[in-house]
Amino acid sequence: MSDKPISQLVIKRLPIYYRYLGELSEKGIERISSKELAQRMGGTASQIRQDLNNFGEFGQQGYGYNVDYLRSEIGKILGIDREQTIIIIGTGNLGQALANYDFGSVGFKLIGLFDVNPRLYNLVINGVEILPVDSLPEFIAANKVDVATLAVPRSRAKEMAKELEDLGIRAIWNFALTELDVSDRVSVSNMHLDDGLMTLSYNYRQNQDK
Amino acid sequence: MSDKPISQLVIKRLPIYYRYLGELSEKGIERISSKELAQRMGGTASQIRQDLNNFGEFGQQGYGYNVDYLRSEIGKILGIDREQTIIIIGTGNLGQALANYDFGSVGFKLIGLFDVNPRLYNLVINGVEILPVDSLPEFIAANKVDVATLAVPRSRAKEMAKELEDLGIRAIWNFALTELDVSDRVSVSNMHLDDGLMTLSYNYRQNQDK
Repeated sequence: MSDKPISQLVIKRLPIYYRYLGELSEKGIERISSKELAQRMGGTASQIRQDLNNFGEFGQQGYGYNVDYLRSEIGKILGIDREQTIIIIGTGNLGQALANYDFGSVGFKLIGLFDVNPRLYNLVINGVEILPVDSLPEFIAANKVDVATLAVPRSRAKEMAKELEDLGIRAIWNFALTELDVSDRVSVSNMHLDDGLMTLSYNYRQNQDK
Repeated sequence: MSDKPISQLVIKRLPIYYRYLGELSEKGIERISSKELAQRMGGTASQIRQDLNNFGEFGQQGYGYNVDYLRSEIGKILGIDREQTIIIIGTGNLGQALANYDFGSVGFKLIGLFDVNPRLYNLVINGVEILPVDSLPEFIAANKVDVATLAVPRSRAKEMAKELEDLGIRAIWNFALTELDVSDRVSVSNMHLDDGLMTLSYNYRQNQDK
């Protein structure tokens, strides 16, 4: 592996490979060539080989890739081979939907749910009790939290993100429809759902105009 | 505007500009230079100018961009200046969270909700009644549906997507954790939430190793 930082575009494709290889494995498929992988996923065989070559040698000339091995190696690169802990702040509809997600499938363990609404306190989702958001400092001091999920309203998000950074959180999975102002010590993954809807609108209209 | 197809990378940045300009407008900011826009959003001024030049001339040398005008032009490019209709298939936690989304803010109107669970029929969310998924063909024949949202379990998604294509749907906003096998007549926006979590895991670990 070279010391050069890997492009975020490559990093963003790794979860797609990971999920796709999981589907192949479920179907009992043991090996696959970069060409077949490209045909099924879109893109070219050479792009796939280039992407994976960033991290080492996974394939064999004339044999292709071992599906389970490649998937497990990609999991290691993504860091999801080791259990990481996650909390969710904001347990409205979206927060509750996220709380029901099968985090174990990507190596995460949900350990905390937080809300400002007293009517939700003590409600248990996916085995985890909803706590007052005021108890966050105490909770984070007592528990190792790898990732904090922000599912709060847009108006509360920037302030909450800063508070999380002050509390020592270094990774935020952001569902609030705004950009966060945190320092570069904090990794942020913005899940702006409406971005997908807007790009879909663009592509749909382009397709119709053909 | 050139006839060359615009890169999907540029298209994906448009919603970020759109949202960001909306935030500036809310703050009463009337104009902004590409340099300031770059500083606030990350990236470089020249990238922003290049992105926007794909679609025409929006800025003025020495003046910068008019925030509201640029936002409205980006909205036109994205096709969200005209009302588009959207339905949601699958009204579990995630589907219900999506149903509560403020679609109007991106030019969409929610007109249908569908589920297989009879206990959910007639429940009204955001002013829209949940109907049996069996009534989809009739509904789509009677109503112009621009976008279908897939919030069904992974195991049902591929089949449902094909059915939607057969019914004439040409845009799918896909939240099921699988790729869809539809023809290229159908525009698909994959909202694989766990992709964001996996890339976050990677960046978080890289940051920690520094």
